[in-house]
Amino acid sequence: MEDKLGVELADFVVTPWEVKGKVDYDKLIEKFGTSRIDKPLINRIKAITGDLHLFFRRDIAFSHRDLDAVLSDYEKGKPFFLYTGRGPSGKMHIGHLLPFYFTKWLQEKFGVNLYIQITDDEKFYLKERSFEEISNIARENILDIAAVGFDPDKTFIFLDSEYIRNMYGLVMKVAKRINFSTVKAIFGFNNMTNIGMINFPSIEIVPTMFEKARCLIPAAIDQDPYWRAQRDIAESMGYYKAAAIHMKFLSPLTGPTGKMSSSDPNTAILLDDDESTVRKKIMKYAFSGGQSTVELQRKLGGDPDIDVSFQWLYYFLEESDDEIERIRREYKSGKMLTGELKEIAIDKIVKFLKDHSARKEQAKTKLVDELMYKGKLAKKMWETIY
Amino acid sequence: MEDKLGVELADFVVTPWEVKGKVDYDKLIEKFGTSRIDKPLINRIKAITGDLHLFFRRDIAFSHRDLDAVLSDYEKGKPFFLYTGRGPSGKMHIGHLLPFYFTKWLQEKFGVNLYIQITDDEKFYLKERSFEEISNIARENILDIAAVGFDPDKTFIFLDSEYIRNMYGLVMKVAKRINFSTVKAIFGFNNMTNIGMINFPSIEIVPTMFEKARCLIPAAIDQDPYWRAQRDIAESMGYYKAAAIHMKFLSPLTGPTGKMSSSDPNTAILLDDDESTVRKKIMKYAFSGGQSTVELQRKLGGDPDIDVSFQWLYYFLEESDDEIERIRREYKSGKMLTGELKEIAIDKIVKFLKDHSARKEQAKTKLVDELMYKGKLAKKMWETIY
Repeated sequence: MEDKLGVELADFVVTPWEVKGKVDYDKLIEKFGTSRIDKPLINRIKAITGDLHLFFRRDIAFSHRDLDAVLSDYEKGKPFFLYTGRGPSGKMHIGHLLPFYFTKWLQEKFGVNLYIQITDDEKFYLKERSFEEISNIARENILDIAAVGFDPDKTFIFLDSEYIRNMYGLVMKVAKRINFSTVKAIFGFNNMTNIGMINFPSIEIVPTMFEKARCLIPAAIDQDPYWRAQRDIAESMGYYKAAAIHMKFLSPLTGPTGKMSSSDPNTAILLDDDESTVRKKIMKYAFSGGQSTVELQRKLGGDPDIDVSFQWLYYFLEESDDEIERIRREYKSGKMLTGELKEIAIDKIVKFLKDHSARKEQAKTKLVDELMYKGKLAKKMWETIY
Repeated sequence: MEDKLGVELADFVVTPWEVKGKVDYDKLIEKFGTSRIDKPLINRIKAITGDLHLFFRRDIAFSHRDLDAVLSDYEKGKPFFLYTGRGPSGKMHIGHLLPFYFTKWLQEKFGVNLYIQITDDEKFYLKERSFEEISNIARENILDIAAVGFDPDKTFIFLDSEYIRNMYGLVMKVAKRINFSTVKAIFGFNNMTNIGMINFPSIEIVPTMFEKARCLIPAAIDQDPYWRAQRDIAESMGYYKAAAIHMKFLSPLTGPTGKMSSSDPNTAILLDDDESTVRKKIMKYAFSGGQSTVELQRKLGGDPDIDVSFQWLYYFLEESDDEIERIRREYKSGKMLTGELKEIAIDKIVKFLKDHSARKEQAKTKLVDELMYKGKLAKKMWETIY
């Protein structure tokens, strides 16, 4: 799978299975043929939503496909729906969760349905794990996702292995329209790829057709190859081309290249890390843009653009634009030391994880059941045969 | 799909999608690496079953894989099970039905479970038809199959598109073990093959693993590539290699090459042909081994080996070995004329179709429901998640 992929440029790689190097987002836009989320588009969103999510304010949601068409539909009273997902390959880290919080914001502001696909089949095809292991991971991941707090009557979280019973009809229709040449070119599949994985793109594409309305997909840009494949066939099947909002990757602790990985715990904060683990990881591993001594830091200042603690505050931990600019200024000028910056980040992360854990604990009783089986949308979906 | 297949020799082709030319069954055994059903094996069967099906007596069930192992299991009191199927691409003709009657005989004699897969997904992937059309064909085909008269408590007929909900877990496990190289080599898939079809072999293989016992598949030899793929992976998954009994093809009306096709109605007797259609087809199209005039026939005699009416009597219409040899002798000697031979065939075909229609009419009310959903085995299968 690794020899021919979504985008491979000289110094970075972005595919559904791999992100390496320092990602140049301008080049990604050019290579993937997507559009920049620019000021006029952001103003259109604000006119509808009243305020703007931090991802829009800070250029983290940076690229899109057909978001303008989605907004035009919405302005005319035509509905759209949201779709995102999770590949249950291991424990979730903070970076995995942020697109879900962003998606929750979109659901609240636009009042639309949201479908969340858990690709247990894909991860089984890709990993040297038993299906039972994948299933256990998936159940745990679903709890983390449910804790984000989606509308239980407008959200449907489903496992591919379970919902296949209802969506197989549509899976067949999609699969019939995609041949090996296409998946070879888009996903880099080759002779060694197993036939389950070869057919998997049809399963990731199907939820874009759950409603006869535009589907907006908030996801990291590495998933874009699936939407390219969808956009090639959707209209001939009587559906809309999928629209997407692409997010930048949260820097790993270890510095501004690649993306976080649960299998390399030093690069990430896991959702079940306790306070002392968070402290240790940030203090020990969080890549710093500061100087090597207090004296030098006071004199020369730090570089927030490469400092992971600052980047995390900017990306999601510090909601206030005034406050983040104050921190940036003080760190840059040398007024704020690396240790102080790290303390701010640690406090915020610990609070984030505590709040998340509390919501996760609550989700265990009833919420997951509603999101997957019993809520208004979930119930309707289990009654629908595609 | 047609450029690289199961077996292509100079003068005939046998693949799951195409049979062309005059099939040399000895060459097929050699090429597919199967074993001949020889006299000692037939005697072993007779020792268990008491009598022998016409297909065994007349070398129509001519080749096998591991049938000896199945018999050894059975003799030791270990169960096995039967599996066969139908691709619902159009109306069924007489040739389609014969393996099912043979399978019914096996079920009765050995008292074992039987699984019948209706590959609506495969035919949707292969044909320029809507899924609705395929579904209608499938429902009609199932009625024809139900009319054969299987044990309603030991038989499960299922549509792939429906039973996928229960078997997807096992489909994934099979799909993970087969890569594109393998399906390219075994089925001749290429860059133009759609990804649904590429994954389809996993779906045809899965029923061989419905029970943790040996699976015996009575089917025409063109399906053998699937069992080759199964036998490569079964043991590593903790299952038995599939055993198979291969049948020869019933000659098309038009002569002893290729196989019958519902899409070319002059080659076949369809199950809903009425008496006058049968008469017209046999009189007009049934390839004759007789001489061009009555005088020459009396003098030189006919050739039963190439005469389609005789072949059909031999293959299934005339149960009595004495009677079929009498007909052969008299036709060969010139005592029997082509017209007389054709009349015998017409009478037998008409009776076969009338009996079948009556049983089909009866199947409509309750039997199909039992075989698919409500019978003892069907019920158990719908409660089983693989």
